[in-house]
Amino acid sequence: MTDAAAKVYDDLVHAAGNREVYNPSSPVAEFGANEPLHLDAGLDLSPFRIAYNTYGELNADKSNAILVCHALTGDHYCASPSPVTGKPGWWSSIIGPGKPVDTDKYFVICSNVVGGCMGTTGPASIKPETGKPYGLELPVITIRDMVRAQKMLVDRFGIDTLFAVVGGSMGGMQVLEWTVSYPDKVFAAVPIATGARHSSQNIAFHEVGRQAVMADPEWHHGRYYEEGTRPTKGLAVARMTAHVTYLSEQALHRKFGRNLQNREQLGFKFDAEFQIESYLRHQGMTFVDRFDANSYLYMTRAMDYFDIAADYDGRLANAFKGSKTRFCLVSFSSDWLFPTEESRAIVHALNAAAASVSFVEVETDRGHDSFLLEEPEFFRAIDGFISAAARARGLAR
Amino acid sequence: MTDAAAKVYDDLVHAAGNREVYNPSSPVAEFGANEPLHLDAGLDLSPFRIAYNTYGELNADKSNAILVCHALTGDHYCASPSPVTGKPGWWSSIIGPGKPVDTDKYFVICSNVVGGCMGTTGPASIKPETGKPYGLELPVITIRDMVRAQKMLVDRFGIDTLFAVVGGSMGGMQVLEWTVSYPDKVFAAVPIATGARHSSQNIAFHEVGRQAVMADPEWHHGRYYEEGTRPTKGLAVARMTAHVTYLSEQALHRKFGRNLQNREQLGFKFDAEFQIESYLRHQGMTFVDRFDANSYLYMTRAMDYFDIAADYDGRLANAFKGSKTRFCLVSFSSDWLFPTEESRAIVHALNAAAASVSFVEVETDRGHDSFLLEEPEFFRAIDGFISAAARARGLAR
Repeated sequence: MTDAAAKVYDDLVHAAGNREVYNPSSPVAEFGANEPLHLDAGLDLSPFRIAYNTYGELNADKSNAILVCHALTGDHYCASPSPVTGKPGWWSSIIGPGKPVDTDKYFVICSNVVGGCMGTTGPASIKPETGKPYGLELPVITIRDMVRAQKMLVDRFGIDTLFAVVGGSMGGMQVLEWTVSYPDKVFAAVPIATGARHSSQNIAFHEVGRQAVMADPEWHHGRYYEEGTRPTKGLAVARMTAHVTYLSEQALHRKFGRNLQNREQLGFKFDAEFQIESYLRHQGMTFVDRFDANSYLYMTRAMDYFDIAADYDGRLANAFKGSKTRFCLVSFSSDWLFPTEESRAIVHALNAAAASVSFVEVETDRGHDSFLLEEPEFFRAIDGFISAAARARGLAR
Repeated sequence: MTDAAAKVYDDLVHAAGNREVYNPSSPVAEFGANEPLHLDAGLDLSPFRIAYNTYGELNADKSNAILVCHALTGDHYCASPSPVTGKPGWWSSIIGPGKPVDTDKYFVICSNVVGGCMGTTGPASIKPETGKPYGLELPVITIRDMVRAQKMLVDRFGIDTLFAVVGGSMGGMQVLEWTVSYPDKVFAAVPIATGARHSSQNIAFHEVGRQAVMADPEWHHGRYYEEGTRPTKGLAVARMTAHVTYLSEQALHRKFGRNLQNREQLGFKFDAEFQIESYLRHQGMTFVDRFDANSYLYMTRAMDYFDIAADYDGRLANAFKGSKTRFCLVSFSSDWLFPTEESRAIVHALNAAAASVSFVEVETDRGHDSFLLEEPEFFRAIDGFISAAARARGLAR
C-alpha cells in the first residue's frame, strides 16, 4: 500500500469504528456475482461477504449444528475473545465445552449479520460501483435478509437441517424468522427475550437513537467515512438511551441508586455527579470505539421493520402452521423492552398452530440484558431443552 | 433601540427560544438587591424576577389562595392561553370557573420557576455583572430554590397561609417541598404523579437528554445566545427521549401501533415511516420553538437533585413530622416514570408521621402525561378533596 492509500484506509477504519469491518480476523465466506443476496427491499446485494466463527466440530452426518444469532450490537465472537475489545465472547458463559450450548457435542456457527460492522457486508463496506463506502446507499436490511444470508452460509457447510437456532433480542427475531422462512431446516428453536414484532415504544426509542446520530454534524448524511470524521457524540447518546432500556429500574436502583460519584455532597454542577451518569457516559464512549454509526441505523431499522404476522394477514399462528420445529421460549420478568407478554403471544400462536413449545419466564431484576448475564435458571432451561432435543434428534451419546 | 441593539435583542430571543424570556407578557414581580434569593448552591441570586399569572380573586382575609406549580417544561400560563404557542393554558381543563380548581371560589397563583425561560430569571437572563446571558454561570437551581422564590412572591400578596399547593411531576416535587420547607403555610397539598426523590432510572433518562443538548455543537458550552445559534437538534432529541417516558406502552400501542405514515407498504428508507416516528419528530421540533435549551438542563438537574429524605437521615417520615397539612396524593396506574410505588412511599411516610393523607391511584393507560389530560376519576378526586378542604378551612359558602 502506498502511504496515501494507507492513509485513506486508516481514515476509513477510524470512521467505521474498528478494523474488522475491512479486514476481519475471522473466517469469511465470499459470495460472488453468481450468488447475490436477494433483499426484501427488492434489490440484490452482490458481491457480499459474511464474517463468521465456528466452535466445536461438525459431525459426519452434519446433524449437530447450532446457529447462534447475535443481537443489535453483537457480533460473531460469541464464544471467543473479541479482536476489537479483547473481552471474552459475549455468550461465552453459555457456549463452550460442558456449557449449556456444549461445543464438545455441537458445532456452533455464529455469523455477523448483513448490515453489521464486524466483517460482513454493511454500510461501511466498499460499494463496487463507486469504490466508496455504501453509507446509506446500502438498501435497508431486514431480519429476513439477515436470515437469508445465514442460510447461504449454512448451505456452504453442506448442512441440510440445523439442529438448533438460538438467539436473544434481535437474535431471537432471527430465530423466529428462521422457523418461518425455513420451517423444515430447523429442528429446535430458542428465541430469547424477543418478540414477533417490534412494539411502538421500541420503535420510538430506536427513532430517538437514530435522530441522535443524524443530528450529529459529523454524520454527514452517512458519508462520514470519506470525511474522515465520526458521529461519535450522536452515537454515544443513542447508546446511552438504549442502554437505559436494557436495564430495569430495580437493577439501576440496586446498582447505583442516587449514589454520588466523587463527592460526599452534591456539587451543583452539570458534571457527572451521580454514579449512574458516569456509568452511562462510559457506556456511550466505549461503544463508539467498536461500532459503526451507520450500522446502528441499519440494525435498529431492521428490528423496527420486524413483524412476522404482517405477511400472514396479521395472524401470527398462521406463520407457524404445520411447524415441526420444537420451540423453547425464554423471557425475563423485569425485561420491559421485550416483556413476557411478547413471548407469551408467540407461545399462544404456537399453541394455536399445534407446534411443540415450552416456555420459561426467568425471575430476575436485571432487565433485558439478563440474556447476556449469568442467570442459573436461564442456563438450566437452555441446557434442559437442548439436551432433550438432542436425544430426540438422536444426538445424545 | 438602535438597529444594532435590536439585532442583538432579536438574536437573544431567537437563541432563547421565545420572547417571553426577556419581555414577559404576564405580570412580573421584581426583587432588587435588598431581596436576594438564597440558593442551595450557597450563592445569592440578585436581582431576580418572577413572571406569574393569577386567576380569580383573593378574598378579604386572604385565605383562598391556591398555588399551582408547573412541571419540567410548563409555565405560568396554567389557565390562560400561552403567548408563545397560542394554545389554551396547560391545566385549563382543571382550573377555571366551576372546574375542580374553581376560580369563582379560589385565587390561583402560578409562577414560572427560577431557572425557567418564560420570564422568571433563568440561564437566558442577563447577568448584571457581565451584561450577557448567564448561560451556565447561573448556579444550579434546586426544587427548594424554586419554592423559596415562590414564597417570596406569595409574601408580596400578603398571604400568610396558602389554602392549597397543587402540582404534578416536577410541580408535585415543589408541592412536597412546600410542605416541608413551610409546614405552617400550607393548609392542603396535592402532589400528583410525583416522588419524594428522583430515581436512578429517571436520572439516567435526564442525563441522556442533557448529553444530547451538550453534544450539539451549537450549544457552545451554554453560550449559544451570544453566538446567535441554538442547539435545536440536541434539544429535540432530548425532548423526544423524554416524551417516550411520558407515555405508556399501551397508549403508544393504541395510538400508533405499527401504523405507517404515508404508505401502504414499508418504504425501506430512514425517513419517518411509522406514525410514532413522525409524531416524535414533531414533538421535538415544536418543543425547541418554545423552550430554552439551557433551561432544560437546569430543570432536569433540579429534579435529579430532589431527595427530601436526604436532609432527614434518609427517613422520609421525619420530614413530615408534626405536619398539620392535609395531603391528597394522586398517581396513575400506567405511569412508569413516577410509578404508584413512589406515591405510596410518600403515603406511608405521611402515615408514619401521623399526617392527614388521602391517596388515589387513577386507572388509566395514558402514562405519566395523564395528569395533563382529561381524566374524570382524577378530576373527581381533586374536586372532592379541595371541596372538603375548603369546608374545613371555612371557605365553603
